[in-house]
Amino acid sequence: MTAQGPIQADIEVGGGTWRFPASRPLRLDSGAQLAPLEIGYKTYGALNADRTNAVLVCHALSGDQHLASTHPITGKPGWWDRFVGPGKPLDPERHFIICTNVVGGCMGTTGPASIDARTGQPYGLSFPVITIADMVRAQAMLIEAMGIETLFAVIGGSMGGMQALQWAADYPEKIFSVVCIAAAARHSAQNIAFHEVGRQAIMADPNWCGGAYLAAGVRPEKGLAVARMAAHITYLSEAALQRKFGRELQRDGLSWGFDADFQVESYLRHQGTSFVDRFDANSYLYITRALDYFDLAAGYGGVLAQAFVRARDVKFCVLSFSSDWLYPTSESRDIVRALNGAGCRTSFAEIETDKGHDAFFLDEPLLDATLQGFLGAQAQARGLS
Amino acid sequence: MTAQGPIQADIEVGGGTWRFPASRPLRLDSGAQLAPLEIGYKTYGALNADRTNAVLVCHALSGDQHLASTHPITGKPGWWDRFVGPGKPLDPERHFIICTNVVGGCMGTTGPASIDARTGQPYGLSFPVITIADMVRAQAMLIEAMGIETLFAVIGGSMGGMQALQWAADYPEKIFSVVCIAAAARHSAQNIAFHEVGRQAIMADPNWCGGAYLAAGVRPEKGLAVARMAAHITYLSEAALQRKFGRELQRDGLSWGFDADFQVESYLRHQGTSFVDRFDANSYLYITRALDYFDLAAGYGGVLAQAFVRARDVKFCVLSFSSDWLYPTSESRDIVRALNGAGCRTSFAEIETDKGHDAFFLDEPLLDATLQGFLGAQAQARGLS
Repeated sequence: MTAQGPIQADIEVGGGTWRFPASRPLRLDSGAQLAPLEIGYKTYGALNADRTNAVLVCHALSGDQHLASTHPITGKPGWWDRFVGPGKPLDPERHFIICTNVVGGCMGTTGPASIDARTGQPYGLSFPVITIADMVRAQAMLIEAMGIETLFAVIGGSMGGMQALQWAADYPEKIFSVVCIAAAARHSAQNIAFHEVGRQAIMADPNWCGGAYLAAGVRPEKGLAVARMAAHITYLSEAALQRKFGRELQRDGLSWGFDADFQVESYLRHQGTSFVDRFDANSYLYITRALDYFDLAAGYGGVLAQAFVRARDVKFCVLSFSSDWLYPTSESRDIVRALNGAGCRTSFAEIETDKGHDAFFLDEPLLDATLQGFLGAQAQARGLS
Repeated sequence: MTAQGPIQADIEVGGGTWRFPASRPLRLDSGAQLAPLEIGYKTYGALNADRTNAVLVCHALSGDQHLASTHPITGKPGWWDRFVGPGKPLDPERHFIICTNVVGGCMGTTGPASIDARTGQPYGLSFPVITIADMVRAQAMLIEAMGIETLFAVIGGSMGGMQALQWAADYPEKIFSVVCIAAAARHSAQNIAFHEVGRQAIMADPNWCGGAYLAAGVRPEKGLAVARMAAHITYLSEAALQRKFGRELQRDGLSWGFDADFQVESYLRHQGTSFVDRFDANSYLYITRALDYFDLAAGYGGVLAQAFVRARDVKFCVLSFSSDWLYPTSESRDIVRALNGAGCRTSFAEIETDKGHDAFFLDEPLLDATLQGFLGAQAQARGLS
């Protein structure tokens, strides 16, 4: 479905590809421009008459716009299905929920697998390096095109949380509230290191073809699978892995070979091989690069609070998970300290869980309750419902 | 240099390749036998007249026998050079120090790159899967062949510490003391997961050739480098990475590409590429497999203390590092609890450091002092010096 005009206020479940004309390029932090820009997006619920109930949900590294609807490739439920529905924190009966595929992605938004209009070939490595701010700039173009002046909330976990923070820095006047879950204001050396392993795994695959694999009719599936496996470990906690798998075997006894003996090996291999069915390897390179480049304070003389000075009227909710070692609670505390320093109204909670970073996808009742409570309070303040 | 007879008591720095006849195979846990067995080893100092001053140092996953002598490939000092020398914890003037390359290794001990006498070709994947107990059994053969009845100490960090524990379980009557540093009595699900990523990276490299790369005249260098990069992150702490590298750039400004922008990327790439010069990819598969299979309690009905019941007369020193997340202190505490349960005399210390698992290679004064103190006390008890 393609929607090019003002959004239909009565669509229950909508979305499609928003196409900006070549005359409206996306200006990138690198200095390059991307045109024509297409944005793949999904919507849930309807925009109210005042256009005050729009919620933007930002996805994480490996996510996409299929927030709460069946994924067209995997056939699985949306990645945050459990948060969206009547009576849930994101309620299509009350909110107009928007989720866009990020720039550089591979699910409908312009990315390295898209056709470069100048050449008629996939961009590949000629795609410009993008940043979190570029992703947000593209979202802002879409929101404006939809005729929405102010978002009731920008919400995201992990890379989605970084986008939410970037919204607060770049477009504070366009947002009412921000929920930032399990994120950080800048990528640490260890975060960069893990991403570099993944990129090297992809680029080591001869089927990567210097990034031009689509033209060659192949895909660096093995390299991308290894990258996903390495990353996936960082999404879980040691305790969760131990609880789920321990040293449990696949079969009775050891194989005395290199088959998957342990259940955790088999699980990880599955994570790798299933990922390559739905994700583009070059997108993985570009999005991890955007994450590594992310350092919100850098544009403000290294003082994170300065990034939020214009966001004093925005209400923030910052959440972390106690067992998240990818974006540990200390990173969220740094964000909260900066928000407080800037005089922003900020709620913060560390949710006790052994599920690690991926807890924000999982059944974590305190997360539901906290989101429900924060968004409910903001809805009252905003005069919604 | 090859030494086949009883060891020369007057050699200052010795070593070579110990060749066992085919009639003395190494019996493996898998049920297979390895013959003829060769063991690459180094010695420092001289065996005393009572043959009571021998210390066996066991190396870690990527180590070898070049404990305190220039590495023949890299030209770098031995991996524990700082611990070996006059007045140091391991003193060639007082100790006869032995370090052997493990079975499955690639520095002189029989491993997958060795020629299989039955075929005249490198073993490759026809090499049998080996275990930590197999490594120790080979060391015990060497010690016996050297005419040494009792080792004054068996010492090791990481996989070396696991070998030291295995010595205590299998040959308690042949050892006087054990130092186990930054190790665990079994590999956790997370440990297995990281190793599986490394193995998949190697096996994804087309130059791996199903393990027969030597015959094909190629080497899976890219895959092995990725495996090493992923593993190397686990050897450091987040704090150490942040302190050493943070978000420091290689050059002024970002490249807006996929070159190594950040110093941590460049460092990690160097770790990967330099590793492939000195390590065999199949050895990496076999040794990581041995580590994953390691579960000392498994042979004792799951009760770790039972593994140490026969080691009541052995003195133990167990050390961990506070920032080691590969083999965290909790793993060492489990070992200590089991040793105490078995009635073994045990010293334990957690050394406060932000250097992570690799602290046992690094300048960590408390480690030096603790080793010096423990070995000094044991020397007195043993009537040495």
